[in-house]
Amino acid sequence: MIHKLHTGLPVKFCNLCGSRTRIGVPEGDDRERHICQTCGYIQYQNPKVVAGSIITHEEQILLCKRAIEPRSGYWTIPAGFLENHESIQQGSIRETWEEARAGITDMHLYQITNLTRIGQIYIIYRAILDDPFTFAPGPESLVVELFDEVSIPWDDMAFRVIKTSLGRFLEERAAGTFTMSVDTLE
Amino acid sequence: MIHKLHTGLPVKFCNLCGSRTRIGVPEGDDRERHICQTCGYIQYQNPKVVAGSIITHEEQILLCKRAIEPRSGYWTIPAGFLENHESIQQGSIRETWEEARAGITDMHLYQITNLTRIGQIYIIYRAILDDPFTFAPGPESLVVELFDEVSIPWDDMAFRVIKTSLGRFLEERAAGTFTMSVDTLE
Repeated sequence: MIHKLHTGLPVKFCNLCGSRTRIGVPEGDDRERHICQTCGYIQYQNPKVVAGSIITHEEQILLCKRAIEPRSGYWTIPAGFLENHESIQQGSIRETWEEARAGITDMHLYQITNLTRIGQIYIIYRAILDDPFTFAPGPESLVVELFDEVSIPWDDMAFRVIKTSLGRFLEERAAGTFTMSVDTLE
Repeated sequence: MIHKLHTGLPVKFCNLCGSRTRIGVPEGDDRERHICQTCGYIQYQNPKVVAGSIITHEEQILLCKRAIEPRSGYWTIPAGFLENHESIQQGSIRETWEEARAGITDMHLYQITNLTRIGQIYIIYRAILDDPFTFAPGPESLVVELFDEVSIPWDDMAFRVIKTSLGRFLEERAAGTFTMSVDTLE
């Protein structure tokens, strides 16, 4: 079976030599790739990891109102694309600083969610806010706020994957046991 | 602080328009990226996920002798780059078929290892071989074999990350409890 290429990223020209690419199945492969028409360089596309954290202070949850697209004006946890040469945990700490100007501690891996349709993998820690008085919007956030559980703006959450993970977190917290989970959202 | 770009992947020309790229820090960013000199398109580079499985049949471990570079002729577990639009588990099943012509079941997430230097994240399941008589080398393997613990070719293992994960697996199996672990190898 040949797997067809379907991607949102444009690969019209070759990174190596600047010539036009074509879509084809390389020898020995079973799926379509972008292949350079001149030098034959194959440009692979792979899923991207998003690193983030569900951050608490006592019973409260830290959320950021997004200042950028996609989903500007909606709420989420600090999370973003993992950079080359950092660990998932380092990425999660960096995103918390960039988006919420906050430090975190006591980090535990909590949730991996495959978003297969868009080629993303969310890897979410649970963590404790360093200091309940030290957080503020970074350049990608409009507001950063600690929410009591009853005040969480469920209808204004930016991403379903975060809504699902946060819901599971609150259920498990109420039950008194946290478990690591791997899920797929199509 | 500006994070310097250091990458093995060549991005000399723009994927969008085919013009020359330059290395620079985009406005609002804090790290160097490949930026198109003509259209301004920023080409991000992110870590890649490698999905694989430690596969057992009773006390035995399934290993493949690699037929391809890097580390051709050395032993490893079935593992490879995750493709777009598949879950980590699906990727691990696919790699087991491609490299060992085997099916697996009873999969549990076992080990995440950040290889920060080379920008890879190994995500390894532990799993049970479907049928001890149904495995064979796929095109990327020379030999596929079930090893007793005492016969594992430790000195001829292809990758340190796999050697470390497999060592932990055997220790935990001997102790009677498996735990999920997240580590970083620099």
